[in-house]
Amino acid sequence: MKTRAAVAFEAGKPLQVADVDLSGPREGEVLVEIKATGVCHTDAFTLSGDDPEGAFPAILGHEGAGVVVDVGPGVKSVKPGDHVIPLYTPECRECDYCLHPKTNLCQSIRSTQGQGVMPDGTSRFTLDGKPILHYMGCSTFSNYTVLPEIALAKVREDAPFDKICYIGCGVTTGIGAVAFTMKVEPGSTVAVFGLGGIGLNVIQGAKMVGASRIIGIDLNPSKVALAKQFGMTDFVNPKEVENVVDHIIQLTGGGVDYSFECIGNVNVMRQALECAHKGWGQSCIVGVAGAGQEISTRPFQLVTGRSWKGTAFGGARGRTDVPKIVDWYMEGRINIDDLITHTMPLDDINKAFDLMHSGESIRSVVLYD
Amino acid sequence: MKTRAAVAFEAGKPLQVADVDLSGPREGEVLVEIKATGVCHTDAFTLSGDDPEGAFPAILGHEGAGVVVDVGPGVKSVKPGDHVIPLYTPECRECDYCLHPKTNLCQSIRSTQGQGVMPDGTSRFTLDGKPILHYMGCSTFSNYTVLPEIALAKVREDAPFDKICYIGCGVTTGIGAVAFTMKVEPGSTVAVFGLGGIGLNVIQGAKMVGASRIIGIDLNPSKVALAKQFGMTDFVNPKEVENVVDHIIQLTGGGVDYSFECIGNVNVMRQALECAHKGWGQSCIVGVAGAGQEISTRPFQLVTGRSWKGTAFGGARGRTDVPKIVDWYMEGRINIDDLITHTMPLDDINKAFDLMHSGESIRSVVLYD
Repeated sequence: MKTRAAVAFEAGKPLQVADVDLSGPREGEVLVEIKATGVCHTDAFTLSGDDPEGAFPAILGHEGAGVVVDVGPGVKSVKPGDHVIPLYTPECRECDYCLHPKTNLCQSIRSTQGQGVMPDGTSRFTLDGKPILHYMGCSTFSNYTVLPEIALAKVREDAPFDKICYIGCGVTTGIGAVAFTMKVEPGSTVAVFGLGGIGLNVIQGAKMVGASRIIGIDLNPSKVALAKQFGMTDFVNPKEVENVVDHIIQLTGGGVDYSFECIGNVNVMRQALECAHKGWGQSCIVGVAGAGQEISTRPFQLVTGRSWKGTAFGGARGRTDVPKIVDWYMEGRINIDDLITHTMPLDDINKAFDLMHSGESIRSVVLYD
Repeated sequence: MKTRAAVAFEAGKPLQVADVDLSGPREGEVLVEIKATGVCHTDAFTLSGDDPEGAFPAILGHEGAGVVVDVGPGVKSVKPGDHVIPLYTPECRECDYCLHPKTNLCQSIRSTQGQGVMPDGTSRFTLDGKPILHYMGCSTFSNYTVLPEIALAKVREDAPFDKICYIGCGVTTGIGAVAFTMKVEPGSTVAVFGLGGIGLNVIQGAKMVGASRIIGIDLNPSKVALAKQFGMTDFVNPKEVENVVDHIIQLTGGGVDYSFECIGNVNVMRQALECAHKGWGQSCIVGVAGAGQEISTRPFQLVTGRSWKGTAFGGARGRTDVPKIVDWYMEGRINIDDLITHTMPLDDINKAFDLMHSGESIRSVVLYD
């Protein structure tokens, strides 16, 4: 079949919308009509050429929502008509990782996914007879795409695609970091470094689980109003204090119970650790640092009781936890609507990248017809 | 009263045994006759002058066992005749730290203890009318010493002082790191970097809790026999493999569930983290690094599911957990006897430091008459 898709032909160049060929689902695979997709920093990172694992030509996009159109042999967990969210972190429920109680990093199809192909080693996309690579196992910048069954979360049918697509990455990463990875308890104090989309989702996750104090840290005071709406109780602008770590320690009488780095800056990662409370403070790295960069601290910080952790996809097991987050949205426990600042058709997808780079958007969503 | 004590008059010089004056216990304080004391690397670190918080003249020693002789007003939890182990990490059961479920770092007397005085700001030791400082709140290099009630663990009376004194620091640090800080589960794989006294105690702790595989790493193959006796299942000499991290990852099919750094080397701390299993591996810093040194890694190590932690006094709450460890020793669940390689009278205490520096001892214990 033919599908309209935005193709990344080479690094550093705009995407080109084209009609590409898509072959049907093979064993264990599912054909999905994507209804909406967010445009994430990770797509921009790969498109820029800075991603050492980036490969071209490819169809990017990993934050979608849609409807099952057809299933290949052996598929049991979804059927045509089911509403689904693609999972760049799948959940096979059979590998050593899925069977381990402490991780969500299913490894069953990691190697082929990293190479931009389906688990059988081939691509379903071609253009003029030449293969185009999949991306993060999702390729949601295509109206129709094929995914492994284990990379689909089945979600309720009354949830709007144009909002829940954001649960495919950003919402789950931020809220999951709080709820699944760090298991923040009610009454906790929390520091959130960086008030972009991920930071705002960390904030609303902290509010949802009952954190008593949520301190946001950002260089840009224009982000304060929305952050407060999402649950931030205190704002710290590092430009306005002598030392942000000391300031947070004083503000909280010793440091925060939990801190989250949502920028990808290794120096801020250190600050986030060091403003955690002696004895029990835990810090979580959510942001993605540039290739080759390193974090540092004095070991005394850990010996005196702080823990340093990280999260990927918010520690969520996709097929199990993503449907729960959709429920939280539908129940009004979390706010997605105010984070989606722009929508556009696929033909305008390059504008989404421009809005991201200029800092004008929190999240842009591409709507398919 | 007079007491025989080994006095550290200045950094870098041998201790001098002298009869010093000791005033009786004040409110909330306890006079203890020390029966035996271990000589620990931390004593040597302070004596060397490298400890930035070291102050002189002082009576060092923090790894003792003895008998209560007298109590000051208000003391309720111990009485004369009780057998006790002094605690350099006290347990007041009232401060924010004691009341927090995730830490053992009681802060109630931290500031005075750090200054070498009792909680009222004065020393009980004098020589020729001039005060001599306490050390780590213990000063077990004195036959008699005064401690706060909250810094004494009451232990069973059938336990031999010359063995259980080691529970006052090294045994608890190593076994507690496994049992209390990291909560290693049965069936876990464990890597232990450094096969000195702490490393051997980590090994026997891992064995006690049911670890299935315990990999010891040390440059010195002469340590293999004793480490195997304590529970080590595999030995890796970093000199004999190309890359110790890759080697351990291969040996275990992906990395260990838990790793422990028991040396105090920041480069080894990094190796310990990076040989932990993707997704769930946790690394614990037990060793104490030199002042100003820093640990580093790529944040990707944490984002992909590893955790970096540390431990002090093995995460043990002294008055609660130290009596349990004495029970474990008396029940034959842990071995202390084979770790105490030398004993000597107080007059020979400087030999204990010599044996430590030459690597000939695991633990030397000073026996009082």
